[in-house]
Formats: sequence, C-alpha cells, structure tokens
Amino acid sequence: MAPSSPAKIVVIGSGLMGSALARAFAAAGHDVVVWNRTASKAKAVGGGTTAVENLSEAVSGRELVVVSLSNYAAWFELFSSKGIASALAGKTLVQLTSGSPADAREGLEWAKANGVDYLDAAILAYPGFVATEYATVFYAGSRSVFDRHLDTLQAIAKKSVYVDEKIGSAATLDCAILEAYYGSSMAFLHAAAMCKAEGLDPKTFFSHKESFLGLVSVTADAARGMIESNDFSGNQCSLNTHVAAIEHIVRLSQDARISARFPKELLANYKRAISEGWGSEELPAVFRTLTRD
Amino acid sequence: MAPSSPAKIVVIGSGLMGSALARAFAAAGHDVVVWNRTASKAKAVGGGTTAVENLSEAVSGRELVVVSLSNYAAWFELFSSKGIASALAGKTLVQLTSGSPADAREGLEWAKANGVDYLDAAILAYPGFVATEYATVFYAGSRSVFDRHLDTLQAIAKKSVYVDEKIGSAATLDCAILEAYYGSSMAFLHAAAMCKAEGLDPKTFFSHKESFLGLVSVTADAARGMIESNDFSGNQCSLNTHVAAIEHIVRLSQDARISARFPKELLANYKRAISEGWGSEELPAVFRTLTRD
Repeated sequence: MAPSSPAKIVVIGSGLMGSALARAFAAAGHDVVVWNRTASKAKAVGGGTTAVENLSEAVSGRELVVVSLSNYAAWFELFSSKGIASALAGKTLVQLTSGSPADAREGLEWAKANGVDYLDAAILAYPGFVATEYATVFYAGSRSVFDRHLDTLQAIAKKSVYVDEKIGSAATLDCAILEAYYGSSMAFLHAAAMCKAEGLDPKTFFSHKESFLGLVSVTADAARGMIESNDFSGNQCSLNTHVAAIEHIVRLSQDARISARFPKELLANYKRAISEGWGSEELPAVFRTLTRD
Repeated sequence: MAPSSPAKIVVIGSGLMGSALARAFAAAGHDVVVWNRTASKAKAVGGGTTAVENLSEAVSGRELVVVSLSNYAAWFELFSSKGIASALAGKTLVQLTSGSPADAREGLEWAKANGVDYLDAAILAYPGFVATEYATVFYAGSRSVFDRHLDTLQAIAKKSVYVDEKIGSAATLDCAILEAYYGSSMAFLHAAAMCKAEGLDPKTFFSHKESFLGLVSVTADAARGMIESNDFSGNQCSLNTHVAAIEHIVRLSQDARISARFPKELLANYKRAISEGWGSEELPAVFRTLTRD
C-alpha cells in the first residue's frame, strides 16, 4: 500500500469531506496530520492520521497543504493569522474548499503574494465516495505543480482531472456540472409531484427514467455542436412548439393546485428566447439568451 | 407489409406530426385518408394516403379516427361542426393532440356524450422518429378499446404503452417526462453559458456529460424510494450543503454578468425547502414543497 515516496501532508478542516480526504491519504501510505478549529474533531478523524492543535505546528514541515473548509472566507481568516503565510512559503496548497471562480482567483492572489504554489480543486463526490471509482477531482492552476503531486493526489480520486491553467476553471466546471444536476433534479422532482397530484403513481414516471435521460443526452450532444457553430437551426422541433408543451405543464400544475413556480420559470426562459426572435430554431437556441443578463 | 386486417383510418390534421402518423399507417398497409383545414396540406401528405376535402366525408366509413391538431380548442371547434359527432358514433377516436390532463378529461366528456370510444394519447417523439424504435406513444382510457386497436396503433410506434384507465394519465406522464427534459436542458445550457463566460470551452463541460447524467440517474432512483416511503433522511449530503453550492452558481453567474435568473430560481426552490425545515435532509426532500402551492 505504501507509495514509492510517502508525502508529508496536512489536511486543514475535519468536516465530513476533510476527514474523508485525510483518511484516504493516510490509507495510501502518506504521512498525514490534521487540524481543526475544534480540536476534538481533528482527533476524531482517525484512520492513521495525527491531530495537531496548533495550526503553525500542523503546517510546519508539510510539503502538501490540503484545505477543506466550509467556505473561502473561513480560509482567508485562518490563513491571515500571524505566521501562517510565512510557514507556507515554498509549499503547495491544494484548495478543496467549495467556491466560485472569483474565490479561486482571490486564493491565487493570496498564494502569489506569499510565495505559495496553488492549485484550486473541486471534488465531484459525496464524502463517502472519496477514494472510490465514483470520485472525480478537477484541478486548475499550474500544470507542472499538478504533475508534481498527481501520484499523491490520486489517493483521493483516481480520476484526478487537470482542467486548465486558468485558476477559476475547476470551480467553473464543478459549478456547471452541479447546476446540470440541481436543475435536472428539480425538474424530475416537480414532474413526480405532478404525477402524484394527478393520481398517477410517481413510480410509473420513474420507470421511464431512461426516456428522459436519453432525450437529455441526445440534446446535449446536439447543443454542443450548435453552440460551437453558433447555429441553432434545425428541423426536429421548434422552440415555438416546445413552448406550447411547457404551457401544458404550467396548466397541469395550476389545475392540480401544486407549485407552478418551477415550470413557470422554464416557460419564462424559453419564451424570452422566442421574444428575441429564436422561435423557429431548435431548443438549444435559448443558450443565446443566457450568455448575457 | 400488409396487416392481417387492414384498418380504415382517417387522420385529422396534416401538420408535421399528423403527416408522419398518416404515412406510417399507410406504410403498414392500412387504408388511410387525411383531412386538413387547408386542403393543399392534406394533398401534400402523400405516402399512399388519400386527401379528402370534406370532413364528414373523410370520417364516414372509418373505424379509427386519429386526431393530431395544434391544440384541443381547435379540435373542439372542428368536431362541434354540424353532423360530425353523429358520424363518429360507435367509432374509436385516438386523440394525439398535445394537451393537459384537463383537456383529456373534457375530450372524454365529449366522447361519452356522443357515443364515441375515446383514447387519449401522447407521443414522445419528433415527427421524424414516428414508426422508428425511438418513438413511444402513451395511451390512457379503456383498456379493452386500447387492446382492440393495439396491432393497428403499433404502426406509429412499436412502443405503444398503456398507462392507465384514468383519461388524464397519458398527458400527465407526457408532461412529466417533458418537464424533466426541459428542466434538464435549461440547466445544462445555462451551465454551458457559465463556462463560456468564464473562458472555459463549453466542450469541456459537455465532455463530462456522463458525470451529470450519472448523478441524475442515481438521484432519481433514490428519490423514487424516498417519495414512496415519504422519508428523505440520509447521510450523503444535506440540503443545507447543496444550497451553499447553488449560491456559488448564482455568484458565478453574477460575477460573469450572464443571466442569473435560472440558478436564482433553483436557489429559491431549494431554500424554500430549508425554510420549511428540511435542511438536514437529502436533496429530494424539496419534493415535499412542490406538492402544494
């Protein structure tokens, strides 16, 4: 199990995710210390990790500093405390705290100002999936810094994907995938609510899961090409026709006295594309109206 | 190609869908006449179909009346014209016009009042996919009427699925699948817009299509069980944590000056579930807030 060259790692933050990351590094044979504002949480991580109460002590002598906090504000506050930045100079900080691309850019500014190598990372997995085949981690920043630590980083996810030099790109890709997930989930949950309200067992709808996933997959492929060519014309089905269908969905929701706000929002978005002149184009033409406010 | 017993069919409406349906029936060896308000459109259907200009003539002697109009209002107006209802008594009307469950219920009332057998159907396919393996048609209404015509109806879709006796059930299932589709599509198109705005090629996002489809699939399966048991507890990731991620998506959109209205709507929906006390439950708990207005 031991790697050819065990790394000295500190994991800052012992929430569900930080704990899972720390244990995964330790399980891969690395030398792992953990720190948490609440010392008892750091001690509870276990799995061969060592809890250290003092932050400066925790980071000293560590080559890889992995941060998993609740947000960037917590991280900035912590790393602004006296002596921490200087203790990190020359080391690599891997930021696994969730944030927006702007957060990542601020993080990089801080790292540059303090002589710290910086990778901004986004993990696409629940804590329970860390170190399994279901975990993916996206990395942005210097390619050479990424390459230098890749072997070590694969302890938390075999699928460690380098996205781009642009520091915001990992957070962007993470936000994009998550939005696709949250939007799809909201849609199928509201769809299930419509079925229930109309006396149709939601199980019947879920048994057709492959139908809508198939439609989404085909449309995503088509949209990719349309966005690339900036040409949304076609002869499958016009936005005008789709909007008529969405109007039925809104009407069903209102007739059945369930929440209509989500389908109404879909209607407003797709109608906006029509009002801008894309009614005879294909569904993905709505993309044109989303790229500006 | 000829069926064991060719049916005498009239298709009312020669739009893209009506034309495709008529040609598919004719290609399967049935005796098909078509009618359209604009006679030239009916003549243009071709494929072995016969255009008839007078609606009463078109329906006379036909055992199966297939309707594909732009909406139910158009159908009601047409079939209220003198002599049509009496010409249909004892025949089977298959309503393929798109509508809501309430439309279907009104259709059934009309059919009952006029001694017409009535199936309400919803087709899940673009016109170009009619009669291919990619077409599915859902049917609601009398099981025996459906069974009597199933062989004939399979000419337009091998996957002819009987949903339920409740006349609104086909429209409900269709609306549900389409909402899942429209919501998912809006989400991934906005996600692609975020990538573009952040200087990340949308292709990179689309190349991770299987990631979000996989997450959606797993969550749909979990949601199905949670809805059935009315228990949304779990230890994967709380709604509170998901909402923090959606806040990043809204912030990215605002920072990048693209439309933030769709992610804001997601945020409002998921936050509403938190304000109602479900913050520590799993994502599908939002279902509870959608089943009422």
